[in-house]
Amino acid sequence: MTSSLQLDQHGRLRHLLTMDGLPRQLLTEILDRAAHLAEATSGADKKLPNLRGRTIVNLFFEASTRTRSTFEVAAKRLSADVINLQVSSSSTSKGETLLDTLKTMEAMQADLFVIRHDASGAAHFFAEHAAPGVAILNAGDGRHAHPTQGLLDLYTIRAHKGPPENLSVAIVGDVLHSRVARSDIHGLRILGCKDIRVVAPPTLIPAGIEQMGARVFHQLEPGLDGVDVVILLRLQTERMLGAFLPSLGEFHRDFGLTRERLAKLKPDAVVMHPGPINRGVEIAGELAYSERSLILEQVANGISVRMAVMDMILGDRGASK
Amino acid sequence: MTSSLQLDQHGRLRHLLTMDGLPRQLLTEILDRAAHLAEATSGADKKLPNLRGRTIVNLFFEASTRTRSTFEVAAKRLSADVINLQVSSSSTSKGETLLDTLKTMEAMQADLFVIRHDASGAAHFFAEHAAPGVAILNAGDGRHAHPTQGLLDLYTIRAHKGPPENLSVAIVGDVLHSRVARSDIHGLRILGCKDIRVVAPPTLIPAGIEQMGARVFHQLEPGLDGVDVVILLRLQTERMLGAFLPSLGEFHRDFGLTRERLAKLKPDAVVMHPGPINRGVEIAGELAYSERSLILEQVANGISVRMAVMDMILGDRGASK
Amino acid sequence: MTSSLQLDQHGRLRHLLTMDGLPRQLLTEILDRAAHLAEATSGADKKLPNLRGRTIVNLFFEASTRTRSTFEVAAKRLSADVINLQVSSSSTSKGETLLDTLKTMEAMQADLFVIRHDASGAAHFFAEHAAPGVAILNAGDGRHAHPTQGLLDLYTIRAHKGPPENLSVAIVGDVLHSRVARSDIHGLRILGCKDIRVVAPPTLIPAGIEQMGARVFHQLEPGLDGVDVVILLRLQTERMLGAFLPSLGEFHRDFGLTRERLAKLKPDAVVMHPGPINRGVEIAGELAYSERSLILEQVANGISVRMAVMDMILGDRGASK
Repeated sequence: MTSSLQLDQHGRLRHLLTMDGLPRQLLTEILDRAAHLAEATSGADKKLPNLRGRTIVNLFFEASTRTRSTFEVAAKRLSADVINLQVSSSSTSKGETLLDTLKTMEAMQADLFVIRHDASGAAHFFAEHAAPGVAILNAGDGRHAHPTQGLLDLYTIRAHKGPPENLSVAIVGDVLHSRVARSDIHGLRILGCKDIRVVAPPTLIPAGIEQMGARVFHQLEPGLDGVDVVILLRLQTERMLGAFLPSLGEFHRDFGLTRERLAKLKPDAVVMHPGPINRGVEIAGELAYSERSLILEQVANGISVRMAVMDMILGDRGASK
Repeated sequence: MTSSLQLDQHGRLRHLLTMDGLPRQLLTEILDRAAHLAEATSGADKKLPNLRGRTIVNLFFEASTRTRSTFEVAAKRLSADVINLQVSSSSTSKGETLLDTLKTMEAMQADLFVIRHDASGAAHFFAEHAAPGVAILNAGDGRHAHPTQGLLDLYTIRAHKGPPENLSVAIVGDVLHSRVARSDIHGLRILGCKDIRVVAPPTLIPAGIEQMGARVFHQLEPGLDGVDVVILLRLQTERMLGAFLPSLGEFHRDFGLTRERLAKLKPDAVVMHPGPINRGVEIAGELAYSERSLILEQVANGISVRMAVMDMILGDRGASK
Repeated sequence: MTSSLQLDQHGRLRHLLTMDGLPRQLLTEILDRAAHLAEATSGADKKLPNLRGRTIVNLFFEASTRTRSTFEVAAKRLSADVINLQVSSSSTSKGETLLDTLKTMEAMQADLFVIRHDASGAAHFFAEHAAPGVAILNAGDGRHAHPTQGLLDLYTIRAHKGPPENLSVAIVGDVLHSRVARSDIHGLRILGCKDIRVVAPPTLIPAGIEQMGARVFHQLEPGLDGVDVVILLRLQTERMLGAFLPSLGEFHRDFGLTRERLAKLKPDAVVMHPGPINRGVEIAGELAYSERSLILEQVANGISVRMAVMDMILGDRGASK
């Protein structure tokens, strides 16, 4: 059902809500488009005319300056008009009121909504009720999904290590609260990755993760043994209740990436993190911008994949609208 | 005096502060321009070059994400540069300090200020002190006026029911606190409407409303009898003090629009509301997006009339400036 | 060392952090460029294509609607894309976290950061760590520097009184907390001004101001005697601790500019103030927009010099990047 929401009758991208169920060919097409757009905006003038005259609304029910700015930069590079709306989710906690917000902005002829909400399923709700000409792009809904983060991780992995089919990838840390982990696992599976590992203490592993296709490790060293890619997750202490909150020192001792542990990885293994990093928790501060780290390149690639998604949803149907 | 503020020596629109006193021909011209601009922006590329290089400042002393975004969308569709300034009215409560804010932004060569303020008369104050090349557009001042809302209501009525001259229009609900009601009554009168009704309990009817040309009804059914247009107002509970606050349940029972009451209206009568709606208070939730409701079309028309006003004030004098 | 940070190997402007140490020729070139850009944007269409496709980030760790909007207007007039980021300095109080914020935005291929921070030296810190293609423009760091304010004051003085070499300039008021005073003194010295005075009670004069080249006066009338330019400073009561806070009435009595005192100045002396003014404290309200006051013209000139700095840093190296 999500698939039918995400694709139009011609199999083209209509909304982007989750990585789950995206056809492999479409996913590859997004990554290829992102590479093309990155190349096209590598000069001093980074502006492309693709979405000129389109209106993109950043509708954020949860404050996230960093994520909002990546979508704003991406949309402006494609020449779209961007409207930033920060809405309190408390004042629109009921579904019907959410719907009023959507319908009102739709009526202003917004073409695409970038939605961030602390409730899982919010983006789906919007997509189910969106008018025919209006697209929804999920910028993170609760613990559920954050598909453009998944896309940028795949893009980064592919650019450095080639197709994920024969790679080993370890996702380390707070898997329980992480929409990034879910999006990454779905995306890696779709692209044929056969060795996906999640590495965390039992209290930070959600139920059902193995059914998604990941192997669980409760200790770091075996979890990292022989991997090509390490994806560290942000420890989301703000979402944890007392009992589930590990000591930060203990977490770093058991699961933090340090220079010593880095030395034990394969010599060409790369390190990723969705940011913002907790220095000295998931990763020793000195490693954040080390040569093995792709953290900043992930940010850059995030602009490219967001441009690609917007361009594929809106730009490609310009003539038919 | 307001008229002389709003019009320049050639009778062209200079500021838009209130519907009161607008010449009929000018009002019609705004609506015609809005229709033209709606047509011109109906494709995928909704951008027109009319106000390229002009600077429009949304100067909001009262938070209103929804209203601000309509003006921002309208200005950007005309290719203007938009600066959003949210200013605390407490820090600028004195007239002289208000003036400093205006003069400072004027000095940055802003061309047009969209002003929202919780004090009636604020927009007039700004217009009286604005420099010759600078225009003021009132986006709502206290209980006084909200002229672009009045314009979009007229536009919507005209588009669906034809010229208001021979129509019956009922305005229902919290007339006391409503700048929308005042703007609508002025506008309908200017366009020759002879049957304007306000329908509300006595505590929600302001003094002097009959002198404005409206007939007062304290009961819903006779008030709606035979009307072509019903304009529901938002119950502004946030502006009401204890004693004047009706029970929401009682209000809905006596003045809320329900499916049953809708059936008693003329079969082609239309329902409007400036939004955001209080579901189950002014209107049953199920009617909000029913086929008789023009609520979302009002939002769309709001963009067109705001573009029209900006274009008439700024675009038409490009050469002479 | 600041000089080497501010200039590239060809002696061109790379960052703008402080007036201190700017070569005279470069400073003059900025003022000339500002005059040229002011002329080029004096028509109805104030948009120039110079920075099309460039991304400028307003990174404000301290709220300042007024300053932010001047940089936003300047950048948009040059056709740059502008991203506004208001960041709490409390959440990024440690240098390393500041650096993460910078590196993340750099990775989005931002070309120039306009930085406002309440800590002296923040802009230098960013410039020291900025990637080769990324520029830092200091929009005020603690008490240290506010170079574009210094530039606009020099521009305004030069436009009205000619080159500062033979002028007498008095800077009056809260010199202690004023980054504006420091920037003005540096700039005036570089342009050869030989009579720079600071006029304030002893508690509002910082140590070492005479080594910067200013003469200190503790009384207003001798301080203003024979000067061509009076620069009033804003009394920054919000930065003062109890013991150092003068009575506002006493300050106005001893150091406030009144109509009577204005009459004693040279007949062609001009009055400046960086704004926002405290009416009845530094200046009698009636004088703020009098014919001798250049306060609003300073605002207008602020747009021009900010455009000039952005254009010189980014526009001139378009081909070589």
